Amino acid sequence: MQKTKEQAETAHQYLEDISKKMESVFDRHLPPETEIPQNLHKAMRYSMFAGGKRLRPALVTAAFDMFGGKGDSVWYAASALEMFHTFSLIHDDLPCIDNDDFRRGKPTAHKQFGEGTAVLAGDALCILAFELMAKTGNAKAIEILARHLGTYGMIGGEITDIESEGKTVTIEMVDYIHYHKTAALIEASLIVGARLAGANETDLSVIQKFGRTIGLAFQVVDDILDIISTTEALGKDAGSDIEKKKATYPSVIGLEASREKAQALYRESIQVLDTLPQNTDILRAIAAFIITRVN
Amino acid sequence: MQKTKEQAETAHQYLEDISKKMESVFDRHLPPETEIPQNLHKAMRYSMFAGGKRLRPALVTAAFDMFGGKGDSVWYAASALEMFHTFSLIHDDLPCIDNDDFRRGKPTAHKQFGEGTAVLAGDALCILAFELMAKTGNAKAIEILARHLGTYGMIGGEITDIESEGKTVTIEMVDYIHYHKTAALIEASLIVGARLAGANETDLSVIQKFGRTIGLAFQVVDDILDIISTTEALGKDAGSDIEKKKATYPSVIGLEASREKAQALYRESIQVLDTLPQNTDILRAIAAFIITRVN
Repeated sequence: MQKTKEQAETAHQYLEDISKKMESVFDRHLPPETEIPQNLHKAMRYSMFAGGKRLRPALVTAAFDMFGGKGDSVWYAASALEMFHTFSLIHDDLPCIDNDDFRRGKPTAHKQFGEGTAVLAGDALCILAFELMAKTGNAKAIEILARHLGTYGMIGGEITDIESEGKTVTIEMVDYIHYHKTAALIEASLIVGARLAGANETDLSVIQKFGRTIGLAFQVVDDILDIISTTEALGKDAGSDIEKKKATYPSVIGLEASREKAQALYRESIQVLDTLPQNTDILRAIAAFIITRVN
Repeated sequence: MQKTKEQAETAHQYLEDISKKMESVFDRHLPPETEIPQNLHKAMRYSMFAGGKRLRPALVTAAFDMFGGKGDSVWYAASALEMFHTFSLIHDDLPCIDNDDFRRGKPTAHKQFGEGTAVLAGDALCILAFELMAKTGNAKAIEILARHLGTYGMIGGEITDIESEGKTVTIEMVDYIHYHKTAALIEASLIVGARLAGANETDLSVIQKFGRTIGLAFQVVDDILDIISTTEALGKDAGSDIEKKKATYPSVIGLEASREKAQALYRESIQVLDTLPQNTDILRAIAAFIITRVN
């Protein structure tokens, strides 16, 4: 337990460093507010600079470094992965989807800029993210990433999430939703970083399994925090899953069993890393962070 | 004039052939309705199979063939370009943007499936289109295409279009909107086809200029048809530009001057083609079709 706390601290430091670095990377990659269409560029920057853990960029760089990646192309990918994440949040928050007014303690994009602008700002971030990915020159990474984002990945999870609201669901259905809505992009972040570093197929399949496991753990912890944390700590409405009758781990198996599930996934993710010869310290630390985080 | 009519007939035949071919290509590239998430896959197919001229796929294949392209990768690109177009139509039709109930004579996606599903179906088509583009293996083509789609291209035109509604605008602003909202994707279709065929930089810059010119002509003709045609012929609400106080060519320079502008753009596009040594018959025919079309 002491070791887990130390590792979480290591991850915290790593995420802080990457976050700081990403601020200037985003600023370089995002169009300036002074250029036409100004209002849209403003909305894109508003959502991208609203804070957040920058977990996905950190997973891209951690996997890239671990497999001995060289060169600057990783920053295009790190930036792109956060843009895909932000695009999904902007659209999910829309009145016609989750109808959320706050995100990271600030009004959501559509509350701040209007719905039409929010739809187009999300679209623009998704497109810009693909443009940045294209600058890596790695078409295969783009293909795999797109697969993780589309109807067999993140978007598939989002639509099933809203279609399941208020319904009685099985734990298998919750797994489907959580894997697709959250774990797919976390898994993709690691795969993209590893691919850009030139990792071989065996390593890629191990890193994919690790991503899938911690991605699911991340969402189970999210479900738990929605119940036990406060709106202030989360920066978004606590208790909103219950209010919206969302399909979550606690709603199907209860809070205590959900905590055990998160711990089991954590242990599984570490066992997966044990099979790799590379230095996996940062990934172990990030897994510990994911399981111990409070917001 | 007789020659223009004959050419328009040639283009009509070419578009019909491509349309027929694309039906089976789309069917192969789109996820089946029987797979989860079924409702989303249904919405994507509904919008993709709602008809339309399939102009963008035809421009991809025409440019590809003209520059001696070989292989099947062109069909990924042809499919992708129509998906990007459909994605933009689905989002533009949303109540928070243009609020249109009909498209190609059928209820728009959000009228048929609800707003949340329409937003995500648009997102999914955009993502799938990038996945298909990635399968061509040409990262540079993806980068240039994304640039034409984002805030410096199509999305930039869309946001400026809605922000200009009801305002007094200059002809320069109408040019900005029309170029970005419509011509950018038409230009991109030709560039992608030419790039996949291995066209050189000089040829690419000529084909880009042709695309820009016929793209603008296409939108000027669209403006004119919105005034002189019927809802039945168009498959969408005629007269809606005036109702929404859209920034259009006729609203700024009048109907007759708009007709002259369209003809001038047509002549310019043909002059651009005259500088190419390749067989440009199909592109000339498509230009004639664009200028003489009635819906």
